[in-house]
Amino acid sequence: MIEKHVLKGNIIYTPQIGELIALPDSFILIENGLVTKTSATLPEEWSAAPIHDYGASLLLPGLTDLHIHAPQYAFRGLGLDMELLSWLDAYAFPEEARYADTGYATFSYSQFADSLRKSFTCRANIFATIHNNTAAKLAELIAKTGLYANIGKVSMDRNCPAELNEGTAALTAAAAWILEMQGRYDRVKPIITPRFIPSCSGPLLAALGQMTARYALPVQSHLSESLKEISLVRRLEPQSRHYADAYYRYGLLGGQPTVMAHCVHLSDQEKLLLKEHGVFIAHCPQSNSNLISGAAPIRSFLRAELKVGLATDMAGGAHMSLLRAMQDAVTVSKLRAALIGMDEEPLSLLEAFYLASKGGGAFFGKVGSFEPGYEADVLVINDAELSPLGLTLGQRLERVIYLADERHLQAKYVAGKEVLLTKDN
Amino acid sequence: MIEKHVLKGNIIYTPQIGELIALPDSFILIENGLVTKTSATLPEEWSAAPIHDYGASLLLPGLTDLHIHAPQYAFRGLGLDMELLSWLDAYAFPEEARYADTGYATFSYSQFADSLRKSFTCRANIFATIHNNTAAKLAELIAKTGLYANIGKVSMDRNCPAELNEGTAALTAAAAWILEMQGRYDRVKPIITPRFIPSCSGPLLAALGQMTARYALPVQSHLSESLKEISLVRRLEPQSRHYADAYYRYGLLGGQPTVMAHCVHLSDQEKLLLKEHGVFIAHCPQSNSNLISGAAPIRSFLRAELKVGLATDMAGGAHMSLLRAMQDAVTVSKLRAALIGMDEEPLSLLEAFYLASKGGGAFFGKVGSFEPGYEADVLVINDAELSPLGLTLGQRLERVIYLADERHLQAKYVAGKEVLLTKDN
Repeated sequence: MIEKHVLKGNIIYTPQIGELIALPDSFILIENGLVTKTSATLPEEWSAAPIHDYGASLLLPGLTDLHIHAPQYAFRGLGLDMELLSWLDAYAFPEEARYADTGYATFSYSQFADSLRKSFTCRANIFATIHNNTAAKLAELIAKTGLYANIGKVSMDRNCPAELNEGTAALTAAAAWILEMQGRYDRVKPIITPRFIPSCSGPLLAALGQMTARYALPVQSHLSESLKEISLVRRLEPQSRHYADAYYRYGLLGGQPTVMAHCVHLSDQEKLLLKEHGVFIAHCPQSNSNLISGAAPIRSFLRAELKVGLATDMAGGAHMSLLRAMQDAVTVSKLRAALIGMDEEPLSLLEAFYLASKGGGAFFGKVGSFEPGYEADVLVINDAELSPLGLTLGQRLERVIYLADERHLQAKYVAGKEVLLTKDN
Repeated sequence: MIEKHVLKGNIIYTPQIGELIALPDSFILIENGLVTKTSATLPEEWSAAPIHDYGASLLLPGLTDLHIHAPQYAFRGLGLDMELLSWLDAYAFPEEARYADTGYATFSYSQFADSLRKSFTCRANIFATIHNNTAAKLAELIAKTGLYANIGKVSMDRNCPAELNEGTAALTAAAAWILEMQGRYDRVKPIITPRFIPSCSGPLLAALGQMTARYALPVQSHLSESLKEISLVRRLEPQSRHYADAYYRYGLLGGQPTVMAHCVHLSDQEKLLLKEHGVFIAHCPQSNSNLISGAAPIRSFLRAELKVGLATDMAGGAHMSLLRAMQDAVTVSKLRAALIGMDEEPLSLLEAFYLASKGGGAFFGKVGSFEPGYEADVLVINDAELSPLGLTLGQRLERVIYLADERHLQAKYVAGKEVLLTKDN
């Protein structure tokens, strides 16, 4: 049976980078969760379909957060005066150790899931911790929200506190997580999640690489975030040509869909490897500033036609809002241009909007646009208090990105289904 | 008659840069709008004074916005993909021309004043436009809020659109503004406001310099924001040693209290001149990023013991929140460190808090601290939803700066008097 419905409002999306489509008072026609098309008028054959008219509100494509840490929600906005490796030791690792406790994890993951539900995010790649049982709790909570997510039980067996070191149990734990999660939820899937090279031994990485291939699962990890981390990887993996090669050698880079967070200091060789294997770069501009990691050269990635999306990397970033991530992506690229590369054109806000919608959405398939066949992820934004009459739709989009918060999110659809925004927990 | 009252809560302030004072469950004793002292217990002789107990909330010193443009409120968050001089021509100047119209100005300034009232800002240096009559309207609206402000009718007579070029009328208009404003309000005062060197002729600058001295009035303007602007000043004022010297030669730099926005690209000579004359630098981190101006070297200013405070520079900055300005100051200093000066220590959040409170507050006298004799500017922040139990007061401050918005502002006092936060317009 075909299920049809229609959304009406001021439609804005960006089907390719730098291109804005703005359709005033138009219709999104949806069949079985997919966009059939956008239209200025309601076609005759759709007249019986239920229609939700959002009046003067904006209809934007859903946004994708390519990289976020659920167990870091509880300390977002703390300790951001540190560099990456110190911050992991002082904040991230001690907090993550608490997720061995089901009671604490349920409490804290519920808050995270609730915030994510009410946010501008429709899809996300999420890190849990090493603990299978509470990572499964997180999956259950996210599944209830109606969002799409890939959730990773984290794998670690070196260079981390004893209580987070899985040792030889890491392999069986990762396999058990996959078997537990595969096919369990429609919208929440497992993803292979080595934390990063410094905290995973060669045998663990090799085993994860094999699981990736055997179960046809995507991979998420961190790559080339800070200079100290890169030096550490060089010492730990002398047989690899570079950091990206360390993942590649273990079968963790591009055999299946792969997303690597940060990529602040990639060499040209690494860029070529990422391009060759269609690896997604999760650009985390606020986190890279907060932890003094640097500013990823996104313009050069786009010129090289690498795949790039945006990420909050909460709690390296303090904020869960992808609107803020767009602001930050533009800001960081401008400061790069002003401080070290006046020849490098900064990102425009429209380009950042592309990265947050279709750029990152592509990791989930045909997502983040209103072109025919795309999944109907739609954000309904009531910007009446922000935008006086007389602004163009493009200007209203600018203002929403700079000034809106979750109070302006009127409704949210993921693959055609409405997500409840008002319910608490 | 001595008017006494007492505020109780968790007191946090920073009496010198880098030093945090955190007093749980303590009292601020206030006499005639001035802090007598802070105290862990209520002294016997204060037992009759009215006390407002804010329970678990935080009491922070009021914040000062050293530089903000009231007529740019209406287009904040727009056009931020441009550089300074193009942005002035495309957005700022055409909008400012509308403030010749009393109806439009009253409508728009009312929104600005209302937002400022509800913000974390207790004191501000505000640019109006060239129009005396509507600048007076702005002063009236700000006076009603209970905030302290210096408001400048802007002076311009070259390099600007015809409708904003005052020509030879600039001198008499500036003098008329002073005479109209002096003594009119308790908390709102006039300030001499040449827009910047490019838009003011030598004779106008000289006349403004004379008025500054004659009426003992402070001065606000822009200095060394972007490289293109600096080249332009060099061409326009060949007889000046440098940009700062152009103000100095006309008596507009330090004869009276002076605040210069931006100072992104100061030479060592300019820094010396600013230090010698006690000039305040209004650091505008978000604006300098948005307009691709650069990143002011605040650490070097602090080492040289220059006076520095924070500013939103709305609408060069999209946001009116000084909490956001603190975040931005830290972010920009971290990117400076990561991209061009690894030897330059980034600003800590505590240092940014100092700049936003006592650093900029000093432009208004003993303001921005809870030391004895300081004016009782107090922000009451209810951070219950942001901060779980177990955080230190210092950590709660961090979270407030990163995560709070005006919804968390429970009450606001300026020189001991409560400012209404809930009233609309």
